[in-house]
Amino acid sequence: MESAITKLVDVFKSYAGKDKLLGKKEFQKLMQTELKNFITNTENNKAVNELKDKIDKNKDGKLTFEEYFCLVTQLATNKYKLQ
Amino acid sequence: MESAITKLVDVFKSYAGKDKLLGKKEFQKLMQTELKNFITNTENNKAVNELKDKIDKNKDGKLTFEEYFCLVTQLATNKYKLQ
Repeated sequence: MESAITKLVDVFKSYAGKDKLLGKKEFQKLMQTELKNFITNTENNKAVNELKDKIDKNKDGKLTFEEYFCLVTQLATNKYKLQ
Repeated sequence: MESAITKLVDVFKSYAGKDKLLGKKEFQKLMQTELKNFITNTENNKAVNELKDKIDKNKDGKLTFEEYFCLVTQLATNKYKLQ
């Protein structure tokens, strides 16, 4: 469990870069590389961008760790309910 | 990332049992087995129970998946901030 939590932290840090935020390109790359089985349409940049805007609570165009982890929570909840 | 999310779902399911809830004993076992590095004092049942009560939003003495994942979010946020 601890290694799974550490992995989720490390994934954010590896894509977010120095500003500690996930910009448009960074989020697209994360989606296409890390979540191509959990989420369909990750190659469709328009769909990916719409998802990012939905998660981007403070509407600054970038995702903080907290906003990123809301996506993780949603994915885990979906996974739990589908099993 | 997907395997990490799946792991966190599977951990809940393996400890929660048929009623899909984490009771007092189940939560203690999860803490002592899965989180002994992230959280100190997991052998202290009183401390573990106090943590459970804090997470138990609807105060029914048991933890749902959503309440469990709030703990996961808190642990990930702490881990992120400490690194």
